Amino acid sequence: MTQETLDIIGRVHQILTKKGISISVAESCTGGMLSHLLTLLPGSSAFFAAGFVVYSEEAKNRILGVSSDTLIRCGMVSAETAIEMAERARVLAGTDYSIATTGNLGPDVLEGKERGLIYVAMSGKSGSIVQKFRLDGDRQANRKTACLRALELFIEELEAV
Amino acid sequence: MTQETLDIIGRVHQILTKKGISISVAESCTGGMLSHLLTLLPGSSAFFAAGFVVYSEEAKNRILGVSSDTLIRCGMVSAETAIEMAERARVLAGTDYSIATTGNLGPDVLEGKERGLIYVAMSGKSGSIVQKFRLDGDRQANRKTACLRALELFIEELEAV
Repeated sequence: MTQETLDIIGRVHQILTKKGISISVAESCTGGMLSHLLTLLPGSSAFFAAGFVVYSEEAKNRILGVSSDTLIRCGMVSAETAIEMAERARVLAGTDYSIATTGNLGPDVLEGKERGLIYVAMSGKSGSIVQKFRLDGDRQANRKTACLRALELFIEELEAV
Repeated sequence: MTQETLDIIGRVHQILTKKGISISVAESCTGGMLSHLLTLLPGSSAFFAAGFVVYSEEAKNRILGVSSDTLIRCGMVSAETAIEMAERARVLAGTDYSIATTGNLGPDVLEGKERGLIYVAMSGKSGSIVQKFRLDGDRQANRKTACLRALELFIEELEAV
């Protein structure tokens, strides 16, 4: 675990604890790593309620409740799916906010979407936002970067509240 | 990531792919790390369907469906809860097998259960098994060891099938 990662986790931890905010996550391409990072430090149970690692299309639909229409129309790797994942996790877990990740870490092309294409979304009571970016590292590096980008987005938004 | 960890992940990957078996996980104390490890290698979408990171008692009950009776009678850190977590994840995700973790990684005593007390469970169509052990590392080391123990249990059982 690099110092950069620990610093970001520490900041998220501090903001959530200080503001008394609860969160949940819905992960596709990050495969559980985002939940892992958010629960790394002692005391994380004060803000972290639940994580959904919905790796398959079926899991996104059946477990999380992302609509079949969205999945068929936009694909798993899309802004629409990322937003719906975040919104559904927030509702199912009953938390103030939720963060979601979906993307193609590689090595292959997925649904015609190139390797390294990532979406991170965040949902709160007042609405949702999504960010799209492209990463050019290997699978493991991209996974970690996707987590850090999601956490950075979350920090920025929460600090603006 | 140590070579030992990569070796264990590689073995699980190989067994699941070869046997055409699907899995899901339900995690409490490992907080997403078990899902993260199981989806680390390319091709893991062939066997990994979904992971539930049910960190709070409410999430165990409301999202995963662990019975309130079990949670009240035995506590979150118990063999009964570990088994029910694995069974519920398997049903919800519709997979052949499921692995679950629950425990107290520390630093504090939880429900009167000492730090380092961990349960890992595995559920399949023919039944469930649970293992209890005590770890004496720090929080992060214990989390990783709990994941590796769960994967080792899974390998042993699947190789015996």
